[in-house]
Amino acid sequence: MLVSARPPVDLLSDSDIAAIDAAWRTIVAEIGVQFENPRATALLAEAGQRVDGDTVLFDADWVAAQVAQAPPAWTWHGRNPERDIPVGQGTTAFAPTYGSPFVLRAGERRNGTLQDLRDLVALIQDADELDVAGGVVVEAQDIDVDVRHLHLLRTLAVESDKPFMAAVNSPVAVEDSVRIADIAIGGLDGRCALTAIVNSNSPLRWDERMSDAMMGLARHGQAPIVMPGALLGAMAPVTLAGGTAQMLAEAFAAISLIQVVRPGCPVLLGVGLPITDMQSGAAGFGGPDLARGVVAHGQLARHYGLPTRALGGGLTTSQVADAQAGFEAMQGIKAAVDARADVVMHAAGWLDAGLVAGFEKLIVDLDVIASVCVEYGPIAVDADTLALDAIREVGHGGHFFGVEHTLARYRDCFHRPALASTMNVERWRAAGAKTAEQRAEDLWRERLAAHEPPPIDPAVRDEIDAFVASREQTAA
Amino acid sequence: MLVSARPPVDLLSDSDIAAIDAAWRTIVAEIGVQFENPRATALLAEAGQRVDGDTVLFDADWVAAQVAQAPPAWTWHGRNPERDIPVGQGTTAFAPTYGSPFVLRAGERRNGTLQDLRDLVALIQDADELDVAGGVVVEAQDIDVDVRHLHLLRTLAVESDKPFMAAVNSPVAVEDSVRIADIAIGGLDGRCALTAIVNSNSPLRWDERMSDAMMGLARHGQAPIVMPGALLGAMAPVTLAGGTAQMLAEAFAAISLIQVVRPGCPVLLGVGLPITDMQSGAAGFGGPDLARGVVAHGQLARHYGLPTRALGGGLTTSQVADAQAGFEAMQGIKAAVDARADVVMHAAGWLDAGLVAGFEKLIVDLDVIASVCVEYGPIAVDADTLALDAIREVGHGGHFFGVEHTLARYRDCFHRPALASTMNVERWRAAGAKTAEQRAEDLWRERLAAHEPPPIDPAVRDEIDAFVASREQTAA
Repeated sequence: MLVSARPPVDLLSDSDIAAIDAAWRTIVAEIGVQFENPRATALLAEAGQRVDGDTVLFDADWVAAQVAQAPPAWTWHGRNPERDIPVGQGTTAFAPTYGSPFVLRAGERRNGTLQDLRDLVALIQDADELDVAGGVVVEAQDIDVDVRHLHLLRTLAVESDKPFMAAVNSPVAVEDSVRIADIAIGGLDGRCALTAIVNSNSPLRWDERMSDAMMGLARHGQAPIVMPGALLGAMAPVTLAGGTAQMLAEAFAAISLIQVVRPGCPVLLGVGLPITDMQSGAAGFGGPDLARGVVAHGQLARHYGLPTRALGGGLTTSQVADAQAGFEAMQGIKAAVDARADVVMHAAGWLDAGLVAGFEKLIVDLDVIASVCVEYGPIAVDADTLALDAIREVGHGGHFFGVEHTLARYRDCFHRPALASTMNVERWRAAGAKTAEQRAEDLWRERLAAHEPPPIDPAVRDEIDAFVASREQTAA
Repeated sequence: MLVSARPPVDLLSDSDIAAIDAAWRTIVAEIGVQFENPRATALLAEAGQRVDGDTVLFDADWVAAQVAQAPPAWTWHGRNPERDIPVGQGTTAFAPTYGSPFVLRAGERRNGTLQDLRDLVALIQDADELDVAGGVVVEAQDIDVDVRHLHLLRTLAVESDKPFMAAVNSPVAVEDSVRIADIAIGGLDGRCALTAIVNSNSPLRWDERMSDAMMGLARHGQAPIVMPGALLGAMAPVTLAGGTAQMLAEAFAAISLIQVVRPGCPVLLGVGLPITDMQSGAAGFGGPDLARGVVAHGQLARHYGLPTRALGGGLTTSQVADAQAGFEAMQGIKAAVDARADVVMHAAGWLDAGLVAGFEKLIVDLDVIASVCVEYGPIAVDADTLALDAIREVGHGGHFFGVEHTLARYRDCFHRPALASTMNVERWRAAGAKTAEQRAEDLWRERLAAHEPPPIDPAVRDEIDAFVASREQTAA
């Protein structure tokens, strides 16, 4: 897991933060936030907030007090305790892409299948660069939608031992997620083993499904990732400051509801606002406007003491794993790390504004993550690394290949990328003159061929399988 | 020109800096730095330093005093005064790739020619992302080596109006550079219109040609870029701290010589140490070890009050403009900006560890630079951008497309990349399903077809042409 040796990046001044703080307070108090969910509005009314139809007009100080109840640090548990993810404790964990209906695999773009999902989860499980198994890494469109989440959850819980995300397509799916996580980690017992994205229906509205999902997760002490469903210029103001104020108003209203359901429930503030391409109306998932916002939002999250999940890992609008996909991924990953995000979603495999889970892109992104982890690591400065004896020994115009100082360190002194080539042109041609995308295909094929599923207690696996089978019968 | 809204990145602690400071002092005083140049050693002996053959054993405090004489801020003048580059004044200027013998152009890799050089300089001249015309952007291998620098300088001085770099292949080439710059800017008159890379022959040695070049530039008040010629693990210790101490010893010895020749002469500290690929012995021009060093070196340069030129712009070891080339370019550009480099060399067009000037890669890198300039820009937070009236107007669940706040801003509110695609898959397929590399080829072809040379006073052009013609006769 990445631990940045750099200080967090502060982009906003104190007066900027004060102005944004005043703006979200005005929004929640004077305009209010809608919850299209009578169970949610009833709870908020009971907690003393003014409810007018679907609209809740908040006491901003009360909202701030609810936000302050969300724990600044907690643990996201995995089936394998060695995979537990610390949140709010200075590390950055990387999670794969999420929610794509399609795959791009060896040049073929098509609907995702359960086999694609299982293969992606196998690659994710084996990748040291990724800390989270994922959620809907890709939609298994060959599985009936009523039972799809059961197969998804079974894949995540059994075929990976890393922490995973809940399914939130219905209240029942949330309960199924909680039950499977409970079996997988041997009893939740108040621990958090699930996170899940809950998106607002911006501007300033939470729909029934999402407010049910956050309340359902909260009842079990599982962590909603509270994030805007807005594109700047479409469902939010065209300006980042205004979009950010609206985002915080939406998020803080939801966090308040979550804290009413279960005081102290862990949450992640989802940060990052995509833009609207003003020529096409398309979503700008990638690029500098989004990246800059992620960094500023990270600073705001630190101000409010909230852990974050950053949008803006390997985001790109490219259709293929080309130079654009590469540089946008590096931009997004670095921005998320500069924001000191606790969890970076979509860090690997994202293509075509999220419509496509790309096998080759996943391998490219793993190289990006590994490289950033080294770049943001510490620099050791001490007598050993200053190497004055070696410099004396080599003298003027010599070389360091043969000195003991080099020989003792050369094996692991530098980053060795899995994908990036350092071959000269002759060797590169001899190896087939392959682009990074072509080498990435070779790599995922090799990895899948060599894949071995992680160990699992057969009793746990059987219990999950039995639960899935019984629920499939109910659902069918 | 980029002005970062972010604070500079401090990676090293005060005690790290003190330890590195003590180490370079030990090296210059106890091991010494060689100058294979009797004119250089004579000057240093005259200035009171102990000379033993080629080796100069320095008084470290005297070296520090020389370094302190190098001006912290100055101007690099261009033929067009609007193109002048502030140095040491908080901006980051971008310069193209340098020194490649080969080009990769529309898929063909071959020796560079004068026409390639002229085409590259035309693309660089027209690119708002680049502030420097360059130096040896590519070797014009079809031109006799004795007169090649004259054609290079003529191309840079006449076919661009941006500041350019001197040729340093011989003392005569330095004088020719100074004469052409003098004509181009209408009389140097003590102003700096040239920079030039002078590389040490690491470890701890400056060869005759390079020490002549720095002295020649200094006599005219032109700015040497003093940089190590080392790869970590080969011509420097395998550890970054030791390589950095050696780098500073070499650089500060050279800066001392330059200040002896002309007190107050501008210099740029060249920062960034490539690694040695320990499997192949190849130079690791790109990747996280280099990028991390650039950031740390930027902090050291701030400590010593020296302006910097960063290695690590668009560096890559990739052979083509693929995903690897894209993410390594973004990594390097961001590292250089995080280092607060005054000038970023190799920011555009670099491929194959610098052996190749890539036309498509140049276009990719321009997109990277433009994107980083936006990402590192400021965020406006005020009543206008907080947009509370627009948020009130739109209310819950509406959209912002039609509101005045959006209409007044939508044209230029977001970054619009030249290369990166935001097309959906249908439009992308209809446009030929082109990768970023293929679109980059389309773009440079369009730009060359539309290129118009920058205006030049005919008298200036004629004087440069006459000088080049007369010198060609002398040289032939």
